[in-house]
Amino acid sequence: MKTLQIYLADLKELLQANDFVSVRSCLREVSPIDLAEAWDRFTPEERTAIFRLSTRQKATQLFEELDPPEQAGLLGGLRKNDAEELLSDLDPSETGRMMRGLPAPMVRQLTAIMKKGGQEYVQQYLQYPGQTVGALMRGRYVTLDERWPARTAVERIQYSTRLRRIEETHLDTLMVVDADNRLLGQVGLKSLVVAPGDMLVRDLMDSRPPTLPPEADQEEAVKLFTRYKLKSAPVVDSGEKVLGVVVYKDIFEVAAEETEEDFAKMAGFSHPASRTIARSAFLRLPWLLITCLGGMLVSVVVGHFEGTLSKIIALASFSPMIAGMGGNVGAQTATIMVRGLATGDIPPGGETKAIIHEIAIGLLMGVCYGLVVGAIADSVYSERYGLWFGVVVGLSMCFSMTFATVMASLEPFVLRRFGVDPATATGPMITTTTDILSNALYFSLASRLLLR
Amino acid sequence: MKTLQIYLADLKELLQANDFVSVRSCLREVSPIDLAEAWDRFTPEERTAIFRLSTRQKATQLFEELDPPEQAGLLGGLRKNDAEELLSDLDPSETGRMMRGLPAPMVRQLTAIMKKGGQEYVQQYLQYPGQTVGALMRGRYVTLDERWPARTAVERIQYSTRLRRIEETHLDTLMVVDADNRLLGQVGLKSLVVAPGDMLVRDLMDSRPPTLPPEADQEEAVKLFTRYKLKSAPVVDSGEKVLGVVVYKDIFEVAAEETEEDFAKMAGFSHPASRTIARSAFLRLPWLLITCLGGMLVSVVVGHFEGTLSKIIALASFSPMIAGMGGNVGAQTATIMVRGLATGDIPPGGETKAIIHEIAIGLLMGVCYGLVVGAIADSVYSERYGLWFGVVVGLSMCFSMTFATVMASLEPFVLRRFGVDPATATGPMITTTTDILSNALYFSLASRLLLR
Repeated sequence: MKTLQIYLADLKELLQANDFVSVRSCLREVSPIDLAEAWDRFTPEERTAIFRLSTRQKATQLFEELDPPEQAGLLGGLRKNDAEELLSDLDPSETGRMMRGLPAPMVRQLTAIMKKGGQEYVQQYLQYPGQTVGALMRGRYVTLDERWPARTAVERIQYSTRLRRIEETHLDTLMVVDADNRLLGQVGLKSLVVAPGDMLVRDLMDSRPPTLPPEADQEEAVKLFTRYKLKSAPVVDSGEKVLGVVVYKDIFEVAAEETEEDFAKMAGFSHPASRTIARSAFLRLPWLLITCLGGMLVSVVVGHFEGTLSKIIALASFSPMIAGMGGNVGAQTATIMVRGLATGDIPPGGETKAIIHEIAIGLLMGVCYGLVVGAIADSVYSERYGLWFGVVVGLSMCFSMTFATVMASLEPFVLRRFGVDPATATGPMITTTTDILSNALYFSLASRLLLR
Repeated sequence: MKTLQIYLADLKELLQANDFVSVRSCLREVSPIDLAEAWDRFTPEERTAIFRLSTRQKATQLFEELDPPEQAGLLGGLRKNDAEELLSDLDPSETGRMMRGLPAPMVRQLTAIMKKGGQEYVQQYLQYPGQTVGALMRGRYVTLDERWPARTAVERIQYSTRLRRIEETHLDTLMVVDADNRLLGQVGLKSLVVAPGDMLVRDLMDSRPPTLPPEADQEEAVKLFTRYKLKSAPVVDSGEKVLGVVVYKDIFEVAAEETEEDFAKMAGFSHPASRTIARSAFLRLPWLLITCLGGMLVSVVVGHFEGTLSKIIALASFSPMIAGMGGNVGAQTATIMVRGLATGDIPPGGETKAIIHEIAIGLLMGVCYGLVVGAIADSVYSERYGLWFGVVVGLSMCFSMTFATVMASLEPFVLRRFGVDPATATGPMITTTTDILSNALYFSLASRLLLR
């Protein structure tokens, strides 16, 4: 960011002065990622100029960083030749991603510009739904024959990659395939380069690389990359045929988005990056509504026990603490469960163990806090309301904490069974349910035990 | 995981039968990462056998995946020759990481085994505190001269990397340095391989690669890698001299840990992965204690207004809702702020704008909910307590939500100024403060306006 902030004013000035030589050298100092982020500070004319004055490699990178509408705007400003060149430089997956976000007439216009081979690739790409591995995989990679010596393999890489497209072709790990394009193994570019020239690809390759099916969720890809610290993973169909490759660069992006999403869901709203105040408020309303409706139910519960409350007014003092402790223990438990499921810390089959573990913790803490708070309540109010007051407070505290843990540890699994993302299970929902039930128990215990 | 689960029983059986040939081929199918995770299911003898029967590359990877005590246990079981070989294969940063976790006599014993050059590297590594970039960087990389043609550069890479250490030497991006080891630029292995043989390194290199200082926090490295989707970043001192390199593999690990940590802190406890029930409960207690003490303060506040409450018993019905809504809005705001700071979405200098934005949202929602809930309270209770009852409920609701947003949006910055991680600012703390203050305002408003 800093770099661009330094150059931004200069860049705009130089562009206005039509001093293209200086603009070029200025652009060399700036990352395409920073440029893309500040894209809305340039006029359409400046954008086209920046794009055309960047090196081909940086221009492609810049284009990939923009949002689909911005990409379309930029493409519209380019001459037909330049647009054609750009489209041939882009990976089909990138072109497809852009097309998903464009109106149909524009898509038709772009398809017309593309070369025939490119069109087919993009069509193939578009058949995979968004959020799947298929929509994430790249189409530009190099395959090798297992019988080649390392020297031939390196020559083949050099031959099949023209210099200007290096950035867009995945070369870090090369896929070894048979005559039917079935995956036999994978070999790193660095192993090939460093190996003696006559060593065979077969003897250099890793024959059991982790692979991904195209229909898997992108989240699965993030898990696989993180677990095995991969640089790339081949995408293969059910017959082991290679369809494409997922690369770590794209995984960075997906992982960042998913973390954002998880955090947002846990706080109880569904869209973290929203612009206007009214829109942000609107997006957050649904979850607050649950809290609010829950609050009304609590007020109905408390209202129902007005008789008890008016006789033992001290009950009101402890009600917020009892509900609050339950809510917070519940939030802790839910966080552990949701993260455990997301990261794979809770493996398939290990659910019951994890649930029992959490409930035991909740019960233990419930008993501890129940004893302490009950004793305090007793010491302050036993003179006025008798010995049972402390018992009611302590028991309710223990119930509230245990109940919240039970609910928070079970809810993610229940929701998952119904196809709901468990990250939405936390926060407001658990707090609200605990509020209602712990208040109900507290006041009915009090009515039974203290008003005899 | 699945792969190892399939082979685990076989592997143990084959080891007991001393069928080393089959063990070897079995080990070829299993990832070192899966092996390391199931390490506690093997006996010490089995562990040594597995280690010795793995390929050299896999053995090193396996060793790197183990925790320091397990590493020490494994080293102790090896013959002196094998231990020496292993220590020379490891990157100095890995050896250093292990030594940080070992008792002093063991460290001395290991240092004695190491070769002199290795000892110096490790000493140098150990001077950087944990959690810094210096403690993360790797020491095995290759540097190039900018005047070399690509062909010479590739030869140099082949020469300075013996095949058996490829995995441990970083080769993806090569650092171009001058005679004093000062960084001039960086070039990707694939650019070098694909370029015409007589093209100069100078013309292939990226002359402004993002770099990291060794004293920076590891979190900074994660941010840089995620933002620019890097594969590696050179670590340079204040004089631009190259000290080492940070690679994406290690970043994956740090990033996963940090996300875990953030989630844990937001839920209000500090250690997500803990084993026994008692220990887990103990680790979570501190934050619950804050809630509990806060709850006691609330009960003191409510107790103070017992007179008011006994006359207008319906006040108790709305108190949980008012506090709950504030708490939940506060949690949403804090989540947005903490994530924004962590991901760089809130850039340095953009804090004030972000705070004002959040407070405006809080105020807007506070006014909306205040009007609605106030109207409901009025329609139900105006006959019994007069028109002011709805006003008190509505005003308190509005205050609670606005106040919670103000606090939640400011707190991360205040804490950051005092050097506290903002992720700890959320959840229980904000809920508790909001509970206390919104109840205080609610009951004092009620006393003033309803008991005149």
